[in-house]
Amino acid sequence: MLGARRLLGALRLCSSVSCPRPRASAKMRVRDALRVQDARGECVTVQGWIRSVRSQKEVLFLHVNDGSSLESLQIVADSSFDSTELTFGSSVQVQGQLVKSQSKRQNVELKAEKIEVIGDCEAKAFPIKYKERHPLEYLRQYPHLRCRTNALGSILRVRSEATAAIHSYFKDNGFVHIHTPVLTSNDCEGAGELFQVEPSSKIKGPKESFFDVPAFLTVSGQLHLEVMSGAFTQVFTFGPTFRAENSQSRRHLAEFYMVEAEISFVESLQDLMQVMEELFKATTEMVLSHCPEDVELCHQFIAAGQKGRLEHMLKNNFLIISYTEAIEILKQASQNFAFTPKWGVDLQTEHEKYLVRHCGNIPVFVINYPSELKPFYMRENEDGPQNTVAAVDLLVPGVGELFGGSLREERYHVLEQRLARSGLTKAYQWYLDLRKFGSVPHGGFGMGFERYLQCILGVDNIKDVIPFPRFTHSCLL
Amino acid sequence: MLGARRLLGALRLCSSVSCPRPRASAKMRVRDALRVQDARGECVTVQGWIRSVRSQKEVLFLHVNDGSSLESLQIVADSSFDSTELTFGSSVQVQGQLVKSQSKRQNVELKAEKIEVIGDCEAKAFPIKYKERHPLEYLRQYPHLRCRTNALGSILRVRSEATAAIHSYFKDNGFVHIHTPVLTSNDCEGAGELFQVEPSSKIKGPKESFFDVPAFLTVSGQLHLEVMSGAFTQVFTFGPTFRAENSQSRRHLAEFYMVEAEISFVESLQDLMQVMEELFKATTEMVLSHCPEDVELCHQFIAAGQKGRLEHMLKNNFLIISYTEAIEILKQASQNFAFTPKWGVDLQTEHEKYLVRHCGNIPVFVINYPSELKPFYMRENEDGPQNTVAAVDLLVPGVGELFGGSLREERYHVLEQRLARSGLTKAYQWYLDLRKFGSVPHGGFGMGFERYLQCILGVDNIKDVIPFPRFTHSCLL
Repeated sequence: MLGARRLLGALRLCSSVSCPRPRASAKMRVRDALRVQDARGECVTVQGWIRSVRSQKEVLFLHVNDGSSLESLQIVADSSFDSTELTFGSSVQVQGQLVKSQSKRQNVELKAEKIEVIGDCEAKAFPIKYKERHPLEYLRQYPHLRCRTNALGSILRVRSEATAAIHSYFKDNGFVHIHTPVLTSNDCEGAGELFQVEPSSKIKGPKESFFDVPAFLTVSGQLHLEVMSGAFTQVFTFGPTFRAENSQSRRHLAEFYMVEAEISFVESLQDLMQVMEELFKATTEMVLSHCPEDVELCHQFIAAGQKGRLEHMLKNNFLIISYTEAIEILKQASQNFAFTPKWGVDLQTEHEKYLVRHCGNIPVFVINYPSELKPFYMRENEDGPQNTVAAVDLLVPGVGELFGGSLREERYHVLEQRLARSGLTKAYQWYLDLRKFGSVPHGGFGMGFERYLQCILGVDNIKDVIPFPRFTHSCLL
Repeated sequence: MLGARRLLGALRLCSSVSCPRPRASAKMRVRDALRVQDARGECVTVQGWIRSVRSQKEVLFLHVNDGSSLESLQIVADSSFDSTELTFGSSVQVQGQLVKSQSKRQNVELKAEKIEVIGDCEAKAFPIKYKERHPLEYLRQYPHLRCRTNALGSILRVRSEATAAIHSYFKDNGFVHIHTPVLTSNDCEGAGELFQVEPSSKIKGPKESFFDVPAFLTVSGQLHLEVMSGAFTQVFTFGPTFRAENSQSRRHLAEFYMVEAEISFVESLQDLMQVMEELFKATTEMVLSHCPEDVELCHQFIAAGQKGRLEHMLKNNFLIISYTEAIEILKQASQNFAFTPKWGVDLQTEHEKYLVRHCGNIPVFVINYPSELKPFYMRENEDGPQNTVAAVDLLVPGVGELFGGSLREERYHVLEQRLARSGLTKAYQWYLDLRKFGSVPHGGFGMGFERYLQCILGVDNIKDVIPFPRFTHSCLL
């Protein structure tokens, strides 16, 4: 297994002369082959799956894809190579010479000297059909095969690039990465229904607990990040989180990924919002520059008009309104809402959508929510009878809430009172402890990673931007 | 929130002249402050926690740490700044001028103009004591506070760097990152006891399943990576995996992280072993170059002699022996084993330790295990009555098994027979399907991430290299 750089190195060794046979031929990824400028008959071997077959009188054209890019490599072969085994979906190894293509559709093509079918593919049984553009909904039935289509291939490459971009963003800005735990004994954060965990042999038998205490799947890494923010001033985590909610929505999953950050010595929501906006924009710019063709495919075939909508989001400064202002805007709206907007009541999806449209389809931060609506750890604004907390949600076009964040209550006595009011003092003694020894003002946020992908690609259903979606009634594979 | 580069930029603006007050002072991380060459009185603000206080007649010395590096920044202040609140563990904000230090122990120090205590720290109640080197075992009692010690700070920074290095290695080599699911309906891979999952409200009530099928926590992302290796020739995952095993060992956790890769068109273990060795060495070199002081701390105070042992591993080519040879070596050993080595029986920890010593403490690949010992998906070697499979384990000094991998059975009919023999045909129809449509020879491996950290740092107990360890009878926080 050679890295791309070394492959290109190996390639240079055998270039420019017509290859005597038999000779060693460098294995090359399709992506790297397509990037060769000024091909001069280099001997290479390419491996992948056939995406198209076109048989002419004297020439056979194949397109071979190995997942390294959306584009496939064109193979040109003498018609004597033709065989009934060379079908859509079958895997092949092709050896030949990389030459400049005469067509304008590609830079290079591979003049085949040897074509080997590695594994055939029976067209009739294969649920993915040649030259058909299957709806994403149809493909969802085949979680083990759908990655072999252009659409899922592109989405998953974008997901991989976005993952790398997020890690880079935080690393470049001095954040320490923390693996917050999946299993937790915290059960009352109020972020939603929990999954509980037991060893499978015991779940059916007598209830002696594995961990001595009930254990749940995490709904957020925040509290554990707060532990770390007492030692490192900037930390982040990027891992799976869970909700046991009976939802069939296009924006919810039972298992989904969250990017969460926590920053110490932060005293205003402004500072947090700056990081959120920078993270969104920097990550997106990186994705756009690393896999433009994959993003383009989504913008062309999955969500027409999304390209312009995304550019609009990227070139404008995100807006900021308070929760109180948001309620005023909603009250003055000409639209009839199913849920009447009212101060003290949570924003509904219809409200979020209206607010984003009202803001010209620019992402908008909504800040300072009523204390009653938010969990115990959010910092009180001390604004008298209004009694709001320093919370922030970022609403974006298409998906609604993308980020949620807040300043955390770092004052021992204020937190102690809030915990006491909720009857949580005992369970959160350790959390209170963090405020006892060198407490600092701090805050953080979480971004739903699948919603982020939906937002930039314009993919309507969250089940199509995660490799293996888990939701009510479904845990395939 | 500014990135390090921009902070240095901001800093340049106010350097070289004595600062008139009041003026804006650039916030700076300790790590960046320590790296300033040729300090000339730049005005900066540093925030962090006090690690030491030394009060002399006319001068007060503080050391402030913000987690960005092991080293703290020395603050020099007029003794008039002295206060009972300036204690070990309390959080402070210090504003002043960055100047060249007169001591040889550091490049720069901060001449304080203003010191603000943000959060105090009561020494008596704080379980971490000034100037004491607490044993790791003692610190394990305080999972919410132990990150505030030098030892855990360094280990967690190394963990963060290693995480980034692993992502870089795979990205640079053309691998696509895949989030394999935590929740799975596969229950018979044979990798160990499983955790089962249900919504917490239902776990106590009537047993109607959330997913319609029993759902478990993953023991490995391999099968899901294999799905992806039918579309992308190189994929990897890096996430949490679980075992519900009643183990109190220093090498096992109920929740731990695995780095797993799957490569298509691979026909020999040799190719897999090359990637494993390269991953180990490239990641380690990157960690050593990015946080040498943190590694050094572990090598000095936690595991004496580990530096030499690690260099020995890095400079030698890893060795390869077959399982059959391993058994011969063990049989000829002068040592008495608790478990008598015998062909057809699994290697025990004592055997692994002996083999590594026998190989001169160089990591050693053991290949070609008896088919009976390994799961259904491993590729048969067709070596007649021996009946081995193309499996590989990497044994390393100190921790034993670090990697496990194999070629996978890609031949439809061979796999079909093996599944039938195990009565798994129905459950793994989807897995068999992967071999029906363009099947390719492929293989992969998994590396235990915590064991990797133990191996390079010399940390004896696995509970000390993960932020929040989960094991039998323990799920704190």
